[in-house]
Amino acid sequence: MKRPFLLTICFLFAISLNSFSQEENQDALFIRQIYDQALTNGQCYDWLTHLTTKIGGRLAGSPQSMAAVEYTKQVLDTLGMDKVWLQPCVVPHWNRGDKETVRVTNSALGSMDLNALALGNSIGTDDEGIIAEVIEVQSLEAVEKLGEAGVKGKIIFYNRPMNPKQIRTFNAYGGAVDQRVFGASKAAKFGAVAVLVRSMTTKLDDFPHTGTLVYEEGTTKIPGLAISTNDAEKLSTILKKGKASVYVKTNCGMMGDKPSYNVIGEIKGSTHPDEIILVGGHLDSWDVGQGAHDDGAGCVHAMDVIQILKRLNYQPKRTIRCVLFMNEENGQGGAIAYMEESNKKGEYHLGAIESDAGGFTPRGFTADGHESIFVEKFQKVVEWLPLVEPYGLFLEKGGSGADISRLKSQKGLLFGFRPDSQRYFDYHHTAADRIEAVNQRELELGAASMTTLVYLLDKHGL
Amino acid sequence: MKRPFLLTICFLFAISLNSFSQEENQDALFIRQIYDQALTNGQCYDWLTHLTTKIGGRLAGSPQSMAAVEYTKQVLDTLGMDKVWLQPCVVPHWNRGDKETVRVTNSALGSMDLNALALGNSIGTDDEGIIAEVIEVQSLEAVEKLGEAGVKGKIIFYNRPMNPKQIRTFNAYGGAVDQRVFGASKAAKFGAVAVLVRSMTTKLDDFPHTGTLVYEEGTTKIPGLAISTNDAEKLSTILKKGKASVYVKTNCGMMGDKPSYNVIGEIKGSTHPDEIILVGGHLDSWDVGQGAHDDGAGCVHAMDVIQILKRLNYQPKRTIRCVLFMNEENGQGGAIAYMEESNKKGEYHLGAIESDAGGFTPRGFTADGHESIFVEKFQKVVEWLPLVEPYGLFLEKGGSGADISRLKSQKGLLFGFRPDSQRYFDYHHTAADRIEAVNQRELELGAASMTTLVYLLDKHGL
Repeated sequence: MKRPFLLTICFLFAISLNSFSQEENQDALFIRQIYDQALTNGQCYDWLTHLTTKIGGRLAGSPQSMAAVEYTKQVLDTLGMDKVWLQPCVVPHWNRGDKETVRVTNSALGSMDLNALALGNSIGTDDEGIIAEVIEVQSLEAVEKLGEAGVKGKIIFYNRPMNPKQIRTFNAYGGAVDQRVFGASKAAKFGAVAVLVRSMTTKLDDFPHTGTLVYEEGTTKIPGLAISTNDAEKLSTILKKGKASVYVKTNCGMMGDKPSYNVIGEIKGSTHPDEIILVGGHLDSWDVGQGAHDDGAGCVHAMDVIQILKRLNYQPKRTIRCVLFMNEENGQGGAIAYMEESNKKGEYHLGAIESDAGGFTPRGFTADGHESIFVEKFQKVVEWLPLVEPYGLFLEKGGSGADISRLKSQKGLLFGFRPDSQRYFDYHHTAADRIEAVNQRELELGAASMTTLVYLLDKHGL
Repeated sequence: MKRPFLLTICFLFAISLNSFSQEENQDALFIRQIYDQALTNGQCYDWLTHLTTKIGGRLAGSPQSMAAVEYTKQVLDTLGMDKVWLQPCVVPHWNRGDKETVRVTNSALGSMDLNALALGNSIGTDDEGIIAEVIEVQSLEAVEKLGEAGVKGKIIFYNRPMNPKQIRTFNAYGGAVDQRVFGASKAAKFGAVAVLVRSMTTKLDDFPHTGTLVYEEGTTKIPGLAISTNDAEKLSTILKKGKASVYVKTNCGMMGDKPSYNVIGEIKGSTHPDEIILVGGHLDSWDVGQGAHDDGAGCVHAMDVIQILKRLNYQPKRTIRCVLFMNEENGQGGAIAYMEESNKKGEYHLGAIESDAGGFTPRGFTADGHESIFVEKFQKVVEWLPLVEPYGLFLEKGGSGADISRLKSQKGLLFGFRPDSQRYFDYHHTAADRIEAVNQRELELGAASMTTLVYLLDKHGL
């Protein structure tokens, strides 16, 4: 092995640095205090328990989403921040209605109900439902190839699984989710009457995973539903043996736009109040389950950052702002309102951190930013590695978060919190995303990691 | 910040190495294949499902432990190894008997039963049980301070919690477990009649955690039991308000020594057959629960290493040996027998890897070895970092495993597999250590990590 030798020297040199400068020592000590507080006085798990068990699923526009606005504002009001407010936004209100039915029938098998959930933003069927032959495909391109001759009047069943070989499961999600988001409009162009989509998970089980679909403008809207991976396997097996028809009945639909709110609190910076460090998650969730990992965890992470800093009597130099965004799941009305007001005021977000990947053991942060500033600013962040590596954290180039990515034009750095991703898609957008799926210590370590990055951004700037 | 600048240069240099030498490329490609196989054709989860749900808790000497020997030997027989055999060993057979009772009584409260488990190797009470005043202490030293005047005739309640501030939970375990292991003999020296020990977990719940106690030779044996953390908190609250007595009745005891077996399979090395690379876990578990994480996971990890290498048609240069040790939990009869025979034969274990920290997402390996060879050999291991870091793995100095640590005199390297430790002590030695607590992908990634290290040891030697 040739080149690793140099690498080894770097590594051995790095681990030989067992003494920090005085400033680094201060940082290391303060970070240790952050973790101590998070693991002994963290509030995130208690808040998440309330959000999940007392309020539950919180789809934008729903009464539960408004209860979540009320509850989290009340909590922020207790944390001694300089200002807590609700920022108005407009959100679409999609409603599932009564439980959906998907029933497959073929001559050999008889009939069988499949575990299904209407996709978010989908139109419903009429009262009679839809019955049609079902055609399995592996991709949007396959629908194009089939063309109108193969698709018209049919129900298209997208069955390409998430790739289990991806180590980071979000990459596998990214490689399959086009079927859920764009599959309905693609199939409708060729005359399909509805689509079924294999659930977005590598796990084989009975939970259907909902999630948003997006209708292309000018294309006929047809109903879209997710079926569980076990049922996708069954349906595929049936179709290998012969034709089958599926009956679909959904009761969902758009209820129109509604007013809603982002929940925001801030601590004004003592010396650089115009440099904002945002920490946030999204308050809305899908209606099934309790929105525990997605994204109750992210909200309570962000709230606990404030609680921990306050408990440590930390006086920030820069403005620390906790933002709980509304409507990330199916429209991003909250993110749009936030960005518009921020740009109008000429604000500068020096850093923004979003937690929207679950409450699992932290592995690190990925950073993104405008190309004109990224290399220079990220070089500064990399200098903090020796301070965060003892806590098992990496700092890498990568994505940030759906709610904060619009802030890129302000030319600060945008960070995505990256916990262990192996279990995330066991729960994502399902009835299983409940408080029981969250481990308290793992959640608390997330809050500690977020607080650490906020502290370093505030202390040293970019 | 002064010194991190140099570190940064190292880091930037490291990440700029985006091309490998030809040999490294081969390694990188083969490791990618290992992960692909583990995540698509891994057998570890199916095997663990059998071991846990069809056999269950497998305490050494029990019928279940013999069923586990039989089952895993049968599986190894199917893997096309050069040799599979049972290695005889002698184990103590401890038996819990009927469910234990711990009842606290005080004048204000009346009576309350506590969730309790006799500690492994503990003697039982006689049929009448024991009733005595209970005294809370935080340490073994506190018992010494109380002396005979404070301890004689009493039941001692050790209540020092595991330190929640430790990031790696095994360190917190190491800082509290002296109470469980040595607490009974320490208290007995001053005339105590029994001990209760707060369960070894930072989680507050109702599961008592069993585990081994060791009686000091020449000291009176008294019964020892663990109580759940919730009940330890309750008992402590009661004792703050006044005196309380506790009734203890256990039905456990030693049934004498029994013959048992380690299960071993090996693939003979093609060019260096005398250099052995061991990969293993322990087959026995506590009697409560199913021994899923501790240590069914370790066994199926080791077995899957063989399955994955075979599936990839890998021909090892060195001898790869899969060893499923018996009796790690309460005597290490299997490890002793293995070490004695190995030393007698003059064997050389170039490397040994034990998985005994659960089936969670892998974080890396710690390495240990005889001081005369460690620095030189470990330097070679560190050169592999660029190959394993893409899979989120570290390679650090640290401990290995209870079953393999006796091989240190053979002067190879001993490795401990280190998965994420945050949830381990939610399940360790409890009725909750069941297959439901194991995530398939996390388990499979463990098997892939172990296979990767075996491959690198075999390919490059030390």
